[in-house]
Amino acid sequence: MARLVMKFGGTSVADPERIRAAAARVKREVTSGHEVAVVVSAMAGATNQLVGWCQALSPLHDAREYDAVVASGEQVTAGLMAIALQTAGVEARSWQGWQIPVYTDEAHGKARIERIAADTLLGRMRAGQVPVVTGFQGVAPNHRITTLGRGGSDTSAVALAAALGADRCDIYTDVEGVFTTDPRIAARARKLDRISYEEMLELASVGAKVLQTRSVELAMKERVRVQVLSSFTDAPGTLVVGEDEIVEKELVSGIAYSRDEAKVTVRRVPDRPGIAGLIFGALAEANVNVDMIVQNVAADGTTDMTFTVSRADFPRAEAVLQAAHDHIPFAEILTDPDVTKISVVGVGMRSHAGVAATMFRTLAERSINIQVISTSEIKVSVLVAAEYTELAVRALHTAYGLDG
Amino acid sequence: MARLVMKFGGTSVADPERIRAAAARVKREVTSGHEVAVVVSAMAGATNQLVGWCQALSPLHDAREYDAVVASGEQVTAGLMAIALQTAGVEARSWQGWQIPVYTDEAHGKARIERIAADTLLGRMRAGQVPVVTGFQGVAPNHRITTLGRGGSDTSAVALAAALGADRCDIYTDVEGVFTTDPRIAARARKLDRISYEEMLELASVGAKVLQTRSVELAMKERVRVQVLSSFTDAPGTLVVGEDEIVEKELVSGIAYSRDEAKVTVRRVPDRPGIAGLIFGALAEANVNVDMIVQNVAADGTTDMTFTVSRADFPRAEAVLQAAHDHIPFAEILTDPDVTKISVVGVGMRSHAGVAATMFRTLAERSINIQVISTSEIKVSVLVAAEYTELAVRALHTAYGLDG
Repeated sequence: MARLVMKFGGTSVADPERIRAAAARVKREVTSGHEVAVVVSAMAGATNQLVGWCQALSPLHDAREYDAVVASGEQVTAGLMAIALQTAGVEARSWQGWQIPVYTDEAHGKARIERIAADTLLGRMRAGQVPVVTGFQGVAPNHRITTLGRGGSDTSAVALAAALGADRCDIYTDVEGVFTTDPRIAARARKLDRISYEEMLELASVGAKVLQTRSVELAMKERVRVQVLSSFTDAPGTLVVGEDEIVEKELVSGIAYSRDEAKVTVRRVPDRPGIAGLIFGALAEANVNVDMIVQNVAADGTTDMTFTVSRADFPRAEAVLQAAHDHIPFAEILTDPDVTKISVVGVGMRSHAGVAATMFRTLAERSINIQVISTSEIKVSVLVAAEYTELAVRALHTAYGLDG
Repeated sequence: MARLVMKFGGTSVADPERIRAAAARVKREVTSGHEVAVVVSAMAGATNQLVGWCQALSPLHDAREYDAVVASGEQVTAGLMAIALQTAGVEARSWQGWQIPVYTDEAHGKARIERIAADTLLGRMRAGQVPVVTGFQGVAPNHRITTLGRGGSDTSAVALAAALGADRCDIYTDVEGVFTTDPRIAARARKLDRISYEEMLELASVGAKVLQTRSVELAMKERVRVQVLSSFTDAPGTLVVGEDEIVEKELVSGIAYSRDEAKVTVRRVPDRPGIAGLIFGALAEANVNVDMIVQNVAADGTTDMTFTVSRADFPRAEAVLQAAHDHIPFAEILTDPDVTKISVVGVGMRSHAGVAATMFRTLAERSINIQVISTSEIKVSVLVAAEYTELAVRALHTAYGLDG
């Protein structure tokens, strides 16, 4: 007998028929003798509609009212799921964030869970009842409803699994698991049986959006075993676990890419201490998130500083730098929004040299020019022209022996 | 300076544009120096959709889960209205039933408000903030969300007005007020400036569904002055007040009709004590609501018992009586679902004879046969064949001098 949290995303609860199907999955686990808690997202499309109404009334709406409005989507699915479970003969009741409570801070629209009072739920579960919990929401110290930000239901599920001491947190979604790369551009992509938290984080943050990054961070911190699987098949999914649970460590687990990148080069800044602080300080103040940063060696007392930002921040980044020109000397700013970041990720590369070299050689063989390189312990990322995205991903997938 | 509760029904908050228009009305009152609290229904159609989803999952769903689901509609409009008010420059915040709290009993799906903790709201209003309160909902002692039943937002508004000691409760709806009769069948119907609680109750309960009956009962008990008016014009509406506020008492205020009637006659039951108790006891046990009851004088030791029930209860009523035939002796059961109840209502008839006589004569002049008669202090009702509905209503409207 295990204790499970089962989380169903928006496409898995999109209408009464799918809610009924999800309830049947829950019943199967309950019938197998497991203690189950369910976490639900809003019906697919519901949150967008609610957000749209808020926007229609004011682009700069009160985040507390926004939260009260959009949290209603999960309230609906939690109640409907409880009805579906009861109808299937499973004892169940819905719980909203304020009822449990799920305590968060007061950062409305992007709140963080601080504590989940799980004792009551645990008691109910031991007595055979399935709690159906609204994902995405909590309650602030001022008794107002908060939401965790888009995709926050994954985080709700992991946090609940941690609070309940669950053996596993199953995230039901519309994909079959985590793949070695995006199957839409590489037909030979394989589903991974297991992946470490660290690898999942690197994959998530570079564009493989299966799980919300924050939920993976939380799972790693709280050591919650997460399974990503499809609600439309019966195939096992991908287990996201600690490295200690992964016996056969792959050199490279996956190839990720992100088209949401733009490159900025600040040409001929003075090569002296403090200049990087000036540039990135100005960007940080304007809330521009900078990703890759490369500084070339200096020549003639000046140097070039290249970095990437998200496409959304791109115009703002350029404006900030132009505005700061009077106290940051530079010759010119070069920009390029048509770039893609491609990353190879794998915990195995910690103990193996040559992973980066393979990447560079593979791309060179296809005459793909590398514009920027950055590395972390378990990841090598390069920036290439956007038009080479598919070619590069497929070539690397083959080069690292990932083809299925 | 007055203290007002302004309640907006579903058609008045059907989309962001209408919510904005409603907010403009609120702003006008606030700018005039009034303290205002707002009560909102769900967007028109929203509650039906939510109810539909519950039904799709199970016709016999848990009322507690049903409440959690359908209460979300008011949550959405309360948040949106608060955003609209803020955008119009009016300080506002939304309040859900559990946040105020609006304490109710545990009769989920048809809960009754027991107490509204209004102190916090009053403090906010004195400080210039407009509370936007979710209609239709409250919280039970077990901390679960309750709803008051369809149309319950009127009751929420009146209860809030009572708790706040408001000078008036304005109910914004899609009609311009209370009319002397249904304008759809009598073109000469006039809007009433004032009507007493008692008259409003009689009109509401016989089919003039402008205000929910319970809200009028509550207004009468708590002496809340209610105004019914349109959110689509600027015309004043109808004031529903105590008789003491009505100087010119009309003999008859209005003609109401209800097509939701069915007639049942139990023929030749023994004329002895206890027989009525047997018949109506059996019906009450089966939850059949009986309206008009007439017992003819006895002849040859038996009598006929005629009564009306709602069309929905009609098949059940007949089945109950047939099933009880072994301990309730009768010759046969005659039924007729094609009947309409027509009522003349007016507090003035208390002190005037001849109101009933005028009614009977007017109908007789049109050769309309009266099947059943029942009277109360301020109402005379008759049952006629359904096909005469429009003719009878128009004739009575003219006969009592109500034509505009």
